[in-house]
Amino acid sequence: MAPDSPLLLAAVILVSALHMGYLARRVGWSRMAHKILPPAVTGPPEFERTFRAHQNCVEFYPMFLVLLWTCSTFFSELAAVVGGLVYMVARQMYFNGYVKSTKKRLPGFYLTLAVMLTLALLALTGILRGILHKYFHIHL
Amino acid sequence: MAPDSPLLLAAVILVSALHMGYLARRVGWSRMAHKILPPAVTGPPEFERTFRAHQNCVEFYPMFLVLLWTCSTFFSELAAVVGGLVYMVARQMYFNGYVKSTKKRLPGFYLTLAVMLTLALLALTGILRGILHKYFHIHL
Amino acid sequence: MAPDSPLLLAAVILVSALHMGYLARRVGWSRMAHKILPPAVTGPPEFERTFRAHQNCVEFYPMFLVLLWTCSTFFSELAAVVGGLVYMVARQMYFNGYVKSTKKRLPGFYLTLAVMLTLALLALTGILRGILHKYFHIHL
Repeated sequence: MAPDSPLLLAAVILVSALHMGYLARRVGWSRMAHKILPPAVTGPPEFERTFRAHQNCVEFYPMFLVLLWTCSTFFSELAAVVGGLVYMVARQMYFNGYVKSTKKRLPGFYLTLAVMLTLALLALTGILRGILHKYFHIHL
Repeated sequence: MAPDSPLLLAAVILVSALHMGYLARRVGWSRMAHKILPPAVTGPPEFERTFRAHQNCVEFYPMFLVLLWTCSTFFSELAAVVGGLVYMVARQMYFNGYVKSTKKRLPGFYLTLAVMLTLALLALTGILRGILHKYFHIHL
Repeated sequence: MAPDSPLLLAAVILVSALHMGYLARRVGWSRMAHKILPPAVTGPPEFERTFRAHQNCVEFYPMFLVLLWTCSTFFSELAAVVGGLVYMVARQMYFNGYVKSTKKRLPGFYLTLAVMLTLALLALTGILRGILHKYFHIHL
């Protein structure tokens, strides 16, 4: 382990992976509750909403990891850690809301987007500053 | 930030995450245009093609990130940057083509595969050279 | 390439990406065998099981990459390499079993979970030890 290894970032990323595992488990529990045997992915509306809630989390997870890593490496590890924790709360709100109704997924979803945009802007700032410094010798 | 941080690679990876966000948005716009409310994922053929086009991009994205990172770290950051940019163009061709018809997805898809194979070969070359050097003291 | 670059980990990650590409190809072959043209994702039970087997691998792949990277960086590269190889065997067992019947996916799935839990525990151990060391000056 290098002495400057991003330990807190790694902790958040590890917890986020376990959180994704928990959401996958929720789909399994919903399968059991509604007696939907794999490979079926259709059934009562609540099951279909649970399934789609998980799918949406899966679709966004690699994007989230990229934003987290670039924000941590090129802007600030602490900002990435805070962003990562808020993202997990937002995803849990989204998931729990979506299970109840299609409309109730929205608050969590908007918070998800807000966190991702913030992480993206911070990462972009850090990367551009780094590129100006390294390739153009402009020190901001 | 370490002085040898791969800034250009990070810029390409960040743009690729934003590109994936844009493609997710395209599915949302297609939902609105065809009035397909979540969690439904079936509807008119054009919506279903748009939905599958995005799913395919999602399925390949983590593989792409792995190839990009290994090619950059063990072969050449510049090769990875060029490969990453061509990949995004290929994915956009694929997506736009697929929305129009199932057949029109193919040129973009073949270009996607060509980029991924190239990145994989370059990464493999670099990793094998590194392993020979580090563990077998063979310097190519 | 930094002298302490995790070459063996990178080799396993690259092979895992190629393995994911192979599983995607298996779905394509199943489409051809059962004459299911994209964007359709429904058809004979064997095709639907093959499709879902691949989807499940896709859903877990980013989690697997996170566990592999954190285990390698903060616990041991060798443990991560062994875990990564066993994971690929488990996923192949899962995929081949699922293609035959829904029930036959289980042995491979349980092995997948066992590997992921092991990698997560090792990574957690390493990260906690690192945090105690760096932020609390407690040396275990």
